[in-house]
Amino acid sequence: MTHETLNAAAGTLPAEAIDAIERAATSAHRHEDLFSERAAHIRQSAVRDVFDISMRPGLISLAGGSPYLQSLPLERLGTTAAKIIAEDGLTALQYGGGQGTEELRTQICAVMAAEGILDARPQNIVVTAGSQSAQDVATKVFCNPGDVVLVENPTYVGALNTFEAYQVQVETVEMDGAGLVPELLEAKIAALQTAGKNIKFLYTIPNFNNPSGITLARDRRQQVVDICRNANILILEDNPYGLLRFDGQPLEPLRAANPADVIYMGSFSKIFAPGLRIGWALVPEHLQRRYYLASEAVTLCPPTLNQMLVSAYLRDYDWKGQIATYRGLYAERCHAMLAALKEHMPSSASWTSPEGGFFVWVTLPDGVDTYPLLQKAIDAGVVFIPGAAFTPSDEPSNKLRLAFSAVDPDAITEGVRRLAPVLREAIAAL
Amino acid sequence: MTHETLNAAAGTLPAEAIDAIERAATSAHRHEDLFSERAAHIRQSAVRDVFDISMRPGLISLAGGSPYLQSLPLERLGTTAAKIIAEDGLTALQYGGGQGTEELRTQICAVMAAEGILDARPQNIVVTAGSQSAQDVATKVFCNPGDVVLVENPTYVGALNTFEAYQVQVETVEMDGAGLVPELLEAKIAALQTAGKNIKFLYTIPNFNNPSGITLARDRRQQVVDICRNANILILEDNPYGLLRFDGQPLEPLRAANPADVIYMGSFSKIFAPGLRIGWALVPEHLQRRYYLASEAVTLCPPTLNQMLVSAYLRDYDWKGQIATYRGLYAERCHAMLAALKEHMPSSASWTSPEGGFFVWVTLPDGVDTYPLLQKAIDAGVVFIPGAAFTPSDEPSNKLRLAFSAVDPDAITEGVRRLAPVLREAIAAL
Repeated sequence: MTHETLNAAAGTLPAEAIDAIERAATSAHRHEDLFSERAAHIRQSAVRDVFDISMRPGLISLAGGSPYLQSLPLERLGTTAAKIIAEDGLTALQYGGGQGTEELRTQICAVMAAEGILDARPQNIVVTAGSQSAQDVATKVFCNPGDVVLVENPTYVGALNTFEAYQVQVETVEMDGAGLVPELLEAKIAALQTAGKNIKFLYTIPNFNNPSGITLARDRRQQVVDICRNANILILEDNPYGLLRFDGQPLEPLRAANPADVIYMGSFSKIFAPGLRIGWALVPEHLQRRYYLASEAVTLCPPTLNQMLVSAYLRDYDWKGQIATYRGLYAERCHAMLAALKEHMPSSASWTSPEGGFFVWVTLPDGVDTYPLLQKAIDAGVVFIPGAAFTPSDEPSNKLRLAFSAVDPDAITEGVRRLAPVLREAIAAL
Repeated sequence: MTHETLNAAAGTLPAEAIDAIERAATSAHRHEDLFSERAAHIRQSAVRDVFDISMRPGLISLAGGSPYLQSLPLERLGTTAAKIIAEDGLTALQYGGGQGTEELRTQICAVMAAEGILDARPQNIVVTAGSQSAQDVATKVFCNPGDVVLVENPTYVGALNTFEAYQVQVETVEMDGAGLVPELLEAKIAALQTAGKNIKFLYTIPNFNNPSGITLARDRRQQVVDICRNANILILEDNPYGLLRFDGQPLEPLRAANPADVIYMGSFSKIFAPGLRIGWALVPEHLQRRYYLASEAVTLCPPTLNQMLVSAYLRDYDWKGQIATYRGLYAERCHAMLAALKEHMPSSASWTSPEGGFFVWVTLPDGVDTYPLLQKAIDAGVVFIPGAAFTPSDEPSNKLRLAFSAVDPDAITEGVRRLAPVLREAIAAL
């Protein structure tokens, strides 16, 4: 799904402009041969594709997983930023250490403690530009072209793009309602290793998986780690939503009891503010140095001002109270979405019931391709992300992702109401 | 030059800690085989090595090229940041477009116009995390392992690290006092292409080269572009210091008259504030899309708050006046350094006389290796960067880089006075 085709589908650009882009993108030019092999593997995420479309007035976007920031104390945060710059500007606006400030890394240990990781040490943390950058660094450090990375099916589109940019062979492992299926993971690893493949890591989002909303069950967690450890495969645990659980019991991250086997990635994008681009990786002691050097080589250092603002927020604000607010807010929105789905969806559709996070995953009957439905949905005034975006294959998908995070409950209800006839029509046409 | 060896040399860590790090870094562990081939090529820059050392009280650091931020209106900038967050926080703290805000990209065109690039269009600009990240993206998009990148000898250590992380073969072209020597560039290209090498681009810092301070002469500029164009090689023009010229006449960037052959990289790190990590690439129309997608794949988007702060600075502040202030400040410091060198250096040393930027490059007699002198200099209370850092080779170097940007004139004089006997002793020992 390229930027051009989707923009064309969405009609956001005049036809001549699209033609010009297509020509430029496809016609040979004298620098064509200079592109790296990996350049051909770098594509735009479907989520970014619809980023601009989603801004259109009148349209209800159930596409992007943007957090709802209205409940942040903006006035007070502004005062805090002013104080940092006025009083510590010579630090805040200057180069900093490549690993991130010690203060923030120490505070991040406390954030992870709230998740159940109790033994993290600041020296094993690398602050990154969101956890997207942490994924990029991990792939850089571990993957040669042709190496295998295992992912859940479905998984985060941005991670898929990162892996593909490194010419990695992405192999999927199926999930059921309780997450990744350990037996299938084990069988997949065995088959790939028997075939002589180098599997480097399993990338997993155990809590409220993006896009499916599914959580890896407690009794499977250690099993998954053990399977990977036995096969000498690292785990990349991506946990941006873990603290945003609004139903059920908190579950320990895979990293908690397995410090040597898991690179744990966290982010302030969902629990504070994505516009600051501050995430982190907690890296096993024996892998830390190379991870850190690779991170530093890309950007020298994370932005100092942003780190200090996050530090002030964690130090002087009721950040746990804010998370509680978010939880309540997202619970309400999730329940509004589930109620609307129940009311409006055709009977042959099914969907997940997440206990946290931002997303519900809808499955339509076999044979429906949700990709061409996007244009029809936009015409009907609602945006979603077609399911094909969340798998490495180019096969049509009968799934779609709906985000409830950024839109108020009434709009969610209205969005689902607008979407229903589009899906109904597609099912009827089968 | 690894982090460990230099820290060990500098005595910043207790011996046991260094031992532990060395053990961890060198001893085999069960994940050793999981590292990518490129991981072995990622090393720390010498400038980052001494970053912590440079902070030690009493030490005069002529090492890091940090800009002098004391002259920024910090109080007012704080107020601006407060206003952005309080009034536009829902934008400033949220995800943004992957290419950067349109407002900032438009303003960047005006900044480049001040350099002599008059035809830049916002749609061909990609905002990046400093120009370090712009280099990383360019290497990602163009270089396969084994491809050749040409650099000036000497060149920026961070760029060398980036190229090496992509397993690129870095080949140097010699400079004289007027910069890169076109005949040598042409001969080097011919030899490499005859040998069947794929040369992807020339990386060059035409103005006040880091580390040498040398500027590419006017009459060589188009020659360099023509040579590369004829060989179908792109140019990566890195120009962070261009506006910080304090002597002589401004020279047009290579990009100015050559829009299809040059990827131009700029940065707010030197003319405003490095702690914001905002730089950019101006990319030829036909290469823009792939460049942009690769940038987005690493971080999704540059930090919105930081972009808005830079935009406000360019819109509401006398940024050209601030650059004039910087110019006066750096001129005074440069002249203090040149005067101190004249007074204190041994007669067999020579050095460059930059017309702008941050650095002076000192050459000692053949046979002196400046690397082991670093520890002696630190003992004498001054820090510099040994010349070997700025070449891809591991050969000893008789050069060293002195930065005058971050230290006041009296400290510069004192730093050079402390350095002189260390160099004198090394020369006497030849």
